[in-house]
Amino acid sequence: MSVLIVGSTALDSIKTPAAENPKLLGGSASHAAVAASFFSPVKLVGVVGNDFPKKYIQLYKKHKLDLAGLQIKDGKTFHWSGEYEVNMDNRQTLLTELGVFETFTPHLPDDYKKSQFVLLANIAPSLQAHVLDQMQKPKLVVADTMDLWLNIALKDLLALLKRVDGFVLNESEAHQLTDCRNMLKAVKAIHKLGPKFVIIKKGHNGSMLSTPTGLFMAPAYPLSEVIDPTGAGDSFVGGMMGYLANTKGSLENNLRRGIMYGTVVASFCCEGFGLNRTTRVTRAQILSRVKELERMVRF
Amino acid sequence: MSVLIVGSTALDSIKTPAAENPKLLGGSASHAAVAASFFSPVKLVGVVGNDFPKKYIQLYKKHKLDLAGLQIKDGKTFHWSGEYEVNMDNRQTLLTELGVFETFTPHLPDDYKKSQFVLLANIAPSLQAHVLDQMQKPKLVVADTMDLWLNIALKDLLALLKRVDGFVLNESEAHQLTDCRNMLKAVKAIHKLGPKFVIIKKGHNGSMLSTPTGLFMAPAYPLSEVIDPTGAGDSFVGGMMGYLANTKGSLENNLRRGIMYGTVVASFCCEGFGLNRTTRVTRAQILSRVKELERMVRF
Repeated sequence: MSVLIVGSTALDSIKTPAAENPKLLGGSASHAAVAASFFSPVKLVGVVGNDFPKKYIQLYKKHKLDLAGLQIKDGKTFHWSGEYEVNMDNRQTLLTELGVFETFTPHLPDDYKKSQFVLLANIAPSLQAHVLDQMQKPKLVVADTMDLWLNIALKDLLALLKRVDGFVLNESEAHQLTDCRNMLKAVKAIHKLGPKFVIIKKGHNGSMLSTPTGLFMAPAYPLSEVIDPTGAGDSFVGGMMGYLANTKGSLENNLRRGIMYGTVVASFCCEGFGLNRTTRVTRAQILSRVKELERMVRF
Repeated sequence: MSVLIVGSTALDSIKTPAAENPKLLGGSASHAAVAASFFSPVKLVGVVGNDFPKKYIQLYKKHKLDLAGLQIKDGKTFHWSGEYEVNMDNRQTLLTELGVFETFTPHLPDDYKKSQFVLLANIAPSLQAHVLDQMQKPKLVVADTMDLWLNIALKDLLALLKRVDGFVLNESEAHQLTDCRNMLKAVKAIHKLGPKFVIIKKGHNGSMLSTPTGLFMAPAYPLSEVIDPTGAGDSFVGGMMGYLANTKGSLENNLRRGIMYGTVVASFCCEGFGLNRTTRVTRAQILSRVKELERMVRF
């Protein structure tokens, strides 16, 4: 089955202590869609300006993304610029130019509306809701978010949470949303807002899944060097959704394996700037790291 | 088989945002020994003053600790006082009164010297070495430490590391010792200092074991409330050593399971002040949480 993914499609200028890379292909939907494409066909929903480099369209096509839902508008592509500190955990936004994103309204092509698997990657919750409004009975809807929407669009986000099956956020976002520092208490509070399953992302400390039947604790794939963590969270949830769309059986079991596939795609994402490493990975390399992780947690 | 454990035997006065508890039974050896006692007989090496409450000796005896190596000296028992911040991760030492510890020299009773399993719990590395000097061919020697010894006794610690099989430390100590922020790089550097296996403790994010044959990633047992984390690291390594001393088979496999047993004892330790909760736990309760953790990591 295919996955419908809506989110940002952007140009990212990224500075780390080691290097600086201007106008890389970025955005939550770009990372999530490439990650999902290793496992399932992907229908992309987003917007770019007429400055969007053709080579990035080619990269999307190389990953066989369906681009019927990608609008190309007069104007500039969304541009984000950020800088990482030495530890690569903290980052500072240097610049945000919305460009064509400012007036973006996602319109789904007809064949998109029947998608069974929907990933509402990080984007304004009102836009995530607008996509959901156009869908016909999806089987599984998962939403990601970021601290910005907790700050400026909390009401929209809370309305959206009532309509999704799964919600993915990081520790500090979970703390901000629930006022609980303790992540067990936080996930309980988030379940009450709607989502049947909640995934807390903990960066290099892995992730935690909470479902009605229990918890799953996933390590991150250990890396000896992180080049650029931008998009790791998007790759994580994209890889997971791609795996889920392509796998039959109980959602609970598939979620656990899906999280491990997402974890591995995210690890590759961190090993290069932007999508440089992810777009060079093979499915065999992903499988190999998933097997390594299986050995690393067995006792 | 029995485990010999040397470390501090102390009175701990602990303040948290919720409560204050003066002169609890504490110290690295107390926590480690009680944790190990669930799985193996324990021979304790330490020193207390003649102010040491009889009820704490009774508590040691309830856990069937061999106290032939516990010196009782004229003077005051080592007293530590600390305060935790709201997040329970950061703590501040308010007071350290060495008392009888200032002149402590561990002398091993003859039957202690043949112990096969030796845990050098957190204490000055020169004292850890002095215990090791008296041992006859132990099968497995594991050392713990703390940042204080990295600051004031690094040379002693480096000499000790050449003589131990396993070394346990937390992330910030590993960073301080190796100058590597990345824990994969840090454990590689630590292996070069001597230890065949290295365990990095990551608090509520679990732990990582590195051996010549690979990595093991262990989650912490998730708790919805932490009452007092003092001694959790000592309980972790004590529980692990107790399990190892009582289990036949390959060290590599046993280490992984031992880490999970240590993880669970540490989780109980965090659920009460000092040793209040740990000393009330049953082996069946420990096994039950280990089984829960098995379910939580399976995929």
